[in-house]
Amino acid sequence: MSVFTTVTPDEMSARLKHYSIGSLVELKGILAGIENTNYFLTTSHGRYVLTLFERLTMQELPFYINLMSHLARHGIACPAPIANLRNELLTELNGKPSVIATRLAGESVMEPNANHCAQIGEILAEMHLAGQTYEGRMKNLRGPEWWTSTAPEVYPFMAPADAELLRNEVHFQSQHRFDKLPVGAIHADLFRDNVLFDGERVGGLIDFYFACNDVLLYDVAITLNDWCVQDNGDIDPVRAHAMLQAYNAVRPFSDAEANAWGVMLRAAALRFWTSRLYDLHKPRPAEMNKPKDPAHFQRVLQHHIARDPKTLWI
Amino acid sequence: MSVFTTVTPDEMSARLKHYSIGSLVELKGILAGIENTNYFLTTSHGRYVLTLFERLTMQELPFYINLMSHLARHGIACPAPIANLRNELLTELNGKPSVIATRLAGESVMEPNANHCAQIGEILAEMHLAGQTYEGRMKNLRGPEWWTSTAPEVYPFMAPADAELLRNEVHFQSQHRFDKLPVGAIHADLFRDNVLFDGERVGGLIDFYFACNDVLLYDVAITLNDWCVQDNGDIDPVRAHAMLQAYNAVRPFSDAEANAWGVMLRAAALRFWTSRLYDLHKPRPAEMNKPKDPAHFQRVLQHHIARDPKTLWI
Repeated sequence: MSVFTTVTPDEMSARLKHYSIGSLVELKGILAGIENTNYFLTTSHGRYVLTLFERLTMQELPFYINLMSHLARHGIACPAPIANLRNELLTELNGKPSVIATRLAGESVMEPNANHCAQIGEILAEMHLAGQTYEGRMKNLRGPEWWTSTAPEVYPFMAPADAELLRNEVHFQSQHRFDKLPVGAIHADLFRDNVLFDGERVGGLIDFYFACNDVLLYDVAITLNDWCVQDNGDIDPVRAHAMLQAYNAVRPFSDAEANAWGVMLRAAALRFWTSRLYDLHKPRPAEMNKPKDPAHFQRVLQHHIARDPKTLWI
Repeated sequence: MSVFTTVTPDEMSARLKHYSIGSLVELKGILAGIENTNYFLTTSHGRYVLTLFERLTMQELPFYINLMSHLARHGIACPAPIANLRNELLTELNGKPSVIATRLAGESVMEPNANHCAQIGEILAEMHLAGQTYEGRMKNLRGPEWWTSTAPEVYPFMAPADAELLRNEVHFQSQHRFDKLPVGAIHADLFRDNVLFDGERVGGLIDFYFACNDVLLYDVAITLNDWCVQDNGDIDPVRAHAMLQAYNAVRPFSDAEANAWGVMLRAAALRFWTSRLYDLHKPRPAEMNKPKDPAHFQRVLQHHIARDPKTLWI
């Protein structure tokens, strides 16, 4: 159950008087959330999602909320935050920062085919291009600095050979930085469960709360590592090529990006291996969710290390 | 036929590379337009309308385009202009200012009932509230100054008694100005053909190209004069009360507005009587549309003059 902060229908009706989206029809808690409280909000004018942020603050949130607003204005399918009568996207409700955003149609596709992957490649490239004019700035809070300081915290919990692999990869990444790669606003967590498909078409991208400014190719690698992976942690080259070609058709990759591809695939796997190890071995006190299996991303990483990355390039 | 400026599929495909809304599926001219060229634009991501402006300039258009963008951001159902990769809503295409905006669902309801009128009252009030934070400024180009200078141009074409009525009303309005009424961004042309209903729900407001800053109650009067009128030019009190009560529930009318109501109803009728007389007697050289009957708004005005406006108030 993940309605951490209750909003009553009366409170919602009162709040809606500060918006231009009609009166309350239904307010229904969403159980699927992990970090935030979410409600499906139906008004006389349409369908929305109310989010109350349980962790992120009024100071941290504008980067994410304004990014969604910017992307929606560019026609990228994502939740469009609704401004209130004071022209604010973000307001406090029952002591928590809150946002009302449009509700997207569709549901996650957990067994995507090459067509799904091509559409994800296309919209990811479009998002990267549309994000080039976004003025918000946020460092990657799960970047090299983070994994370099976090990995040592989990070594003690790991089998020696696994810890050695992790240590070596952190070192490898520190020796292979790329300063000449295109950067911009990235989603940084565009896994299958963060995309809704409305039939065969992308209904929208959701959950922008890991978004930041970083290398665009890194975002491609994160996305591909999830969408194009097989159960054994190896990448399906058919889906991978479909995604990369569709991306390249919208934003052509540079030579520097081609050269960095193998390192980026490994970096993307390292980031999630590390965070899953950390969530498993160092859970936050209030954490109620079953931690995800870190070994999956260890296998993804090992396949990447063993592979010639050119075989996964366009 | 009202595709004044042709856009080929090749030109459209090239233009779409500057946006984030996918690739061209279909481009289809809309015959219904009067002043602008409009195309239904379908891309791999969705349905849009491409408008090329035949009369309004790059200097005049930002007020209207930014107003639509502002209202859409507030959840008001209206075309949302899409920003291109340079973050511009408005660009030149084939020598004309152009905009790509979301395409709304629904169609006009030409014989509205009280339920339709209540929904129009509600969304008009919401639009007025959401417009309070809009920073664009545009004077009413069809306001008292305009009708005072325009009416004399049509007197020579009119039967003496009709001209006398018009002259008297222009004078009456000049003697009854209200400085204390709430003002803001108004649509100023929210006739039935400028609203789409998607089933029983408002699909959206369109055609903001008479929008301006003026008295909010004047916008209510313009809207009511069209939506609640009967064939004989008299107002249907059932529909009128439905509209006014729904409006009042969102933005309560002030005492000053109650007192000004009769004058506003007459002003709104005068404005369209005058413009229709002008279009009939002084058509622009390129005008291809059959002029609308001015006598309709003469009858609307005469009914308003004869009536106690309190009978049409909430």
